[in-house]
Amino acid sequence: MSCCRKPTTTSRVRCKRIIAVRKITPFAQPTCRHHYHQNMERAATNAAKAIIDEEIAENLNIKQLFSALKTFRIADLGCSVGPNTFIAVHNIIAAVEHKYRSEGLDSSIPEFQVFFSDQTSNDFNTLFTTLPLDRRYFVAGVPGSFHGRLFPEASLHFVYSAYALQFLSKLPKEVVEKSSPAWNKGKIHYSNAPNEVVEAYSAQFAKDIQTFLYARSQELVSGGLLALIMPSIPNGTLLSQSFLGIPVELMGSTLMDMAKMGLVSEAKVDSFNLPTYLTSPQELEGLVERNGCFSIMKLCLVDSSMKHNAQSLTMHVRAGVEGMVGEHFGTEIIDELFNRYCAKLEEYSFIFDSDYQKGNQLFVILKRK
Amino acid sequence: MSCCRKPTTTSRVRCKRIIAVRKITPFAQPTCRHHYHQNMERAATNAAKAIIDEEIAENLNIKQLFSALKTFRIADLGCSVGPNTFIAVHNIIAAVEHKYRSEGLDSSIPEFQVFFSDQTSNDFNTLFTTLPLDRRYFVAGVPGSFHGRLFPEASLHFVYSAYALQFLSKLPKEVVEKSSPAWNKGKIHYSNAPNEVVEAYSAQFAKDIQTFLYARSQELVSGGLLALIMPSIPNGTLLSQSFLGIPVELMGSTLMDMAKMGLVSEAKVDSFNLPTYLTSPQELEGLVERNGCFSIMKLCLVDSSMKHNAQSLTMHVRAGVEGMVGEHFGTEIIDELFNRYCAKLEEYSFIFDSDYQKGNQLFVILKRK
Repeated sequence: MSCCRKPTTTSRVRCKRIIAVRKITPFAQPTCRHHYHQNMERAATNAAKAIIDEEIAENLNIKQLFSALKTFRIADLGCSVGPNTFIAVHNIIAAVEHKYRSEGLDSSIPEFQVFFSDQTSNDFNTLFTTLPLDRRYFVAGVPGSFHGRLFPEASLHFVYSAYALQFLSKLPKEVVEKSSPAWNKGKIHYSNAPNEVVEAYSAQFAKDIQTFLYARSQELVSGGLLALIMPSIPNGTLLSQSFLGIPVELMGSTLMDMAKMGLVSEAKVDSFNLPTYLTSPQELEGLVERNGCFSIMKLCLVDSSMKHNAQSLTMHVRAGVEGMVGEHFGTEIIDELFNRYCAKLEEYSFIFDSDYQKGNQLFVILKRK
Repeated sequence: MSCCRKPTTTSRVRCKRIIAVRKITPFAQPTCRHHYHQNMERAATNAAKAIIDEEIAENLNIKQLFSALKTFRIADLGCSVGPNTFIAVHNIIAAVEHKYRSEGLDSSIPEFQVFFSDQTSNDFNTLFTTLPLDRRYFVAGVPGSFHGRLFPEASLHFVYSAYALQFLSKLPKEVVEKSSPAWNKGKIHYSNAPNEVVEAYSAQFAKDIQTFLYARSQELVSGGLLALIMPSIPNGTLLSQSFLGIPVELMGSTLMDMAKMGLVSEAKVDSFNLPTYLTSPQELEGLVERNGCFSIMKLCLVDSSMKHNAQSLTMHVRAGVEGMVGEHFGTEIIDELFNRYCAKLEEYSFIFDSDYQKGNQLFVILKRK
């Protein structure tokens, strides 16, 4: 199989901005941070359902590609422990079955094998003991990083990855090197940081997307689909002016406030950087075309489907970064930090206006050429 | 796919008794019961290697069956947490690669995908974090019972299962029913028990083997191999006269001694039965032929490759049944029970004579028709 890194000029790009938010089942008020985080992602999983349904119906060419297929293999990369992964997988299988039926191929519906994959440190024991009892697919868990190969060549038909690709495989080392022009002193992210910092983050993201797409291009059969969901910023918007950038900056300034009060060391703040990157549709499109192995079937922004306030966003951010923060600064500062953070978010409550929350989720469907 | 339960008369049966024990790498003195148990099984894994090597070389028809194969899929059913499963899988892959090379098909060697499977309660997190770093295969963990389907149809090329099939899927209920002629009063196993008890165990084993073989017959490709290793008794030998039966009976009589002393309740002993069954080559051969989907390529007894004394056997038995015993009788009796058990084994030290340890491991290689 060729390297697939050459840019292509034949990709079919349909980039449309979906402004109206699809109707989402409302969730009960979450009772803990973990559930809150889960609910956030579930809202996105449900919003993705309609798009994935449509793409499978339109673009999964079962007659040409899979007519004698016995096993349809699906992978969720970055599955965590459920239940969102179970919902996502259920939706994909239902859409594929619907596609077979709609083409009069009811009797040819294949068996399904689902590979739940995440880092080796993921709690697969919990994942396995909470599998839906009424599932109609064979299960496997696959440990490892999706920046490398996880599956045999041409063995998968549908790959799904939600809220995982925004995590960089590693922090660009220059942002914590004092001697580097990209040293990110006094900040914890690239939002509103010097150009060199932004470029270091962006370069790492580009590398990660290339290794991700290269591995998937080998694992997916020709005609197979790759669905990606990740937080994002609209084209031409600075991260520092977006709903996703401002809260991160406020977390940095909360830590700097605490440093000035002697509650944490300033050197610790200097050496702490969140390894996350928020891409734009344009940037991701360019990276996919550079890889060259995939046709872009859908690449669109949708609005966040949960409305935030200072308290709910604090819960969400805490669920995402508490582990990293505790490891770097010590767990004893956590409560103080997030109390101060919540107060600071309340000062900047304009970010919760609906305009700021628009178009911050990127949905991408790619087809292996 | 047909049911495959009809008996066949065309199976090629080569049943030979291997008396000489193959040379096994000696093990360091184990330092704990878990390691001891692991070492016991590793000795068998190593002994199996030579047989599996030979069968793959002779009976894996790669030219006819797998000439365009991209992925060779292997499953270890009842893998536990390693490292024995890693050694077994490494050996199988090396033998398959050797087969390709020996036929001048070096450039056609496929990728390997290994499915490590065990009950959902198995510690897959430990399995995944201790995977060999230098492995040359793709990994997946598969939770669930091997008495049902675990894999898509015709998706596996080699299935291996060591020291797992002697565990019954459930205890035959009649052995703990006071009103049943198969009530196993005062005993914890079918060794030296009334015929009705033996028959109840034997019937459950037969059912389990049929569900196991039926599932594997659907999962294996035609020409695929199934390698089984399990403790066993020679044809025509009573379990009560074998190296494997006497220790179980002594465990039962130790418990009855403790019941008479008021240390455990006699009713608890009556309601406790080990859900294990030791088959013979003849019995297993009959069951395989009844299933009808497999040709028997090898079905032979080999000697235990570790020599025992009372202390070592106590460690081994304790590692195997401590969980079950503790759950039924309470963990507070464990130390007392195994101290008494060890003393009793010393009284019956004749069982450690080499004659008693002969032919107590059954190795089976089946080929999917």
